[in-house]
Amino acid sequence: MTLGAIEAGGTKFVCAIGDETGQVTDRISIPTTTPAETMAAVETYFKAHPVAAIGIGSFGPIGVNPDDPKYGYITTTPKPGWGDFDFLGHLKQHVDVPLYWTTDVNEAAYGEAEMGIAKDVPNSIYVTIGTGVGAGVISHNQIFNGRTHTELGHMRLNRLPGDDFENNCPYHDICLEGMAAGPAIGKRTGKTGKDVASDDPVWETVADYIAQACVNLTVAFAPDKIILNGGVMKQTQLFPIIRQKFEAYLNHYETVPALDHYIVPAGLGDNSGVVGGLLLAKLALQEA
Amino acid sequence: MTLGAIEAGGTKFVCAIGDETGQVTDRISIPTTTPAETMAAVETYFKAHPVAAIGIGSFGPIGVNPDDPKYGYITTTPKPGWGDFDFLGHLKQHVDVPLYWTTDVNEAAYGEAEMGIAKDVPNSIYVTIGTGVGAGVISHNQIFNGRTHTELGHMRLNRLPGDDFENNCPYHDICLEGMAAGPAIGKRTGKTGKDVASDDPVWETVADYIAQACVNLTVAFAPDKIILNGGVMKQTQLFPIIRQKFEAYLNHYETVPALDHYIVPAGLGDNSGVVGGLLLAKLALQEA
Ligand SMILES: Nc1ncnc2c1ncn2[C@@H]1O[C@H](COP(=O)(O)OP(=O)(O)O)[C@@H](O)[C@H]1O
Ligand SMILES: Nc1ncnc2c1ncn2[C@@H]1O[C@H](COP(=O)(O)OP(=O)(O)O)[C@@H](O)[C@H]1O
Ligand SMILES: [Zn+2]
Ligand SMILES: [Zn+2]
Repeated sequence: MTLGAIEAGGTKFVCAIGDETGQVTDRISIPTTTPAETMAAVETYFKAHPVAAIGIGSFGPIGVNPDDPKYGYITTTPKPGWGDFDFLGHLKQHVDVPLYWTTDVNEAAYGEAEMGIAKDVPNSIYVTIGTGVGAGVISHNQIFNGRTHTELGHMRLNRLPGDDFENNCPYHDICLEGMAAGPAIGKRTGKTGKDVASDDPVWETVADYIAQACVNLTVAFAPDKIILNGGVMKQTQLFPIIRQKFEAYLNHYETVPALDHYIVPAGLGDNSGVVGGLLLAKLALQEA
Repeated sequence: MTLGAIEAGGTKFVCAIGDETGQVTDRISIPTTTPAETMAAVETYFKAHPVAAIGIGSFGPIGVNPDDPKYGYITTTPKPGWGDFDFLGHLKQHVDVPLYWTTDVNEAAYGEAEMGIAKDVPNSIYVTIGTGVGAGVISHNQIFNGRTHTELGHMRLNRLPGDDFENNCPYHDICLEGMAAGPAIGKRTGKTGKDVASDDPVWETVADYIAQACVNLTVAFAPDKIILNGGVMKQTQLFPIIRQKFEAYLNHYETVPALDHYIVPAGLGDNSGVVGGLLLAKLALQEA
């Protein structure tokens, strides 16, 4: 059975086809320009590659609650043309198969939870630290949503003594994204993340905020695993520093799994999203 | 049908009977001394008042995951005699009815979610700010647990500039409980909470940390309501201050319900726990 996946990002859309085991057999990357242009390319792809269902993970914020009049929409993004865009409604007019609709991070979280590093545990959190910070929570093998999806990139943390960096978020005086995402690292160092030396002291600072975030995720969701992915986590030297700081901050208040198995990189690398999309397509089909 | 409830606190146990609509018809309060003594009194109560099932909410940390060998136990409490105590196993030997086992805050959260202020919404969080801080999360009308229960009293927040109070938690340099629970207020002011004037500047500080916590709960769980209860929240002047600070911190990053209906006192007052217990007893019966 051929299934489809869309990973709809603010820079590019990835469309892929594959099967219900998460095997990807074809994919393309489409630049995110206007909704009309980008969606036309998506529709052309799925006309050339017929599928039984499609799993979609989109940048947001989006409407994820079926009772919400904005269900299926990208809601308040500053990205020109995409605000208040009825993504799902638009796609439905052109592609007549069951669709599963969620956030890009929930899609990737689902991929990791079903086929990736968290496949043996029921509760995991997937965090991407890139241009922004987003997280998807899997609870008892299902995507967790409340009234809407989570916005964990904007959790408040304790400003490090001596760190007077102006939080790089237009909304908040302090938040994970504003202190530790790629653009914040850019402003802190005057370089893009991948050009910063792996032993630059900025990574201590970045690791600290990520470790604090891991504490808050732990006390909030008690997951079995926290998966850290995204451009910034390509700095793999961050993992041991984050684990060490996490341990110091949690300070044995509660028992957690062994840290090497608790705070971990993604198992599927850059494929978490498309694999998640295929498996969500399978869910859409079962629910249809 | 007569159902039972136990609210097992570190200071006192409340045992109650009532019906499946949450109506309480009888209750007693038992001091929490040794497990042998306290549990004997509980068993005597339920022998005198036969019930079809009992819902239990206990102080903790406790084992809530049925796969955990410590399921049904109070695990690591410093309270003499109660550490590693098999509460559920002990009770089962003396009371032969279905039992529902969860934390005290989950029990109260469930009461508020089913019959209290959150009865019309599927997603709510109940936070008690008293001797400690604990929270129970209701997601889609069910108690949320991960690998274990939440420990939201220990989330990290941003230390207020100029607030050099030494965090009143033996584990953490900063956490909600250590900065804002009753004993912290005691140390900050040299008085017990109820003797601190309602316009004392300490309430600004306390409200600030609670507001920060509400931001983190919002971005993590996207609830429909956040319920604040416990001894400290008897200072009802805190509510408008918390809402105002919450609004300033969130800074319209995302849409939330009207704040008067979002950050709210409990609807059942001191009865959240026992009502929750009765309704959990009903669940235990349905699942039996
Ligand atoms: N090797 C690297 N080391 C540190 N930062 C990196 C690295 N590669 C990319 N980044 C940063 O990550 C961000 C891009 O994140 P990424 O997850 O690739 O994409 P996006 O978040 O836009 O989907 C940029 O801010 C970039 O500077
Ligand atoms: N009216 C009040 N104003 C402020 N603080 C109070 C008030 N009443 C009780 N407290 C504080 O709340 C804590 C007790 O919390 P409570 O929720 O009643 O019990 P517990 O948390 O022990 O179950 C104590 O630290 C006490 O000082
Ligand atoms: Zn922010
Ligand atoms: Zn603490």
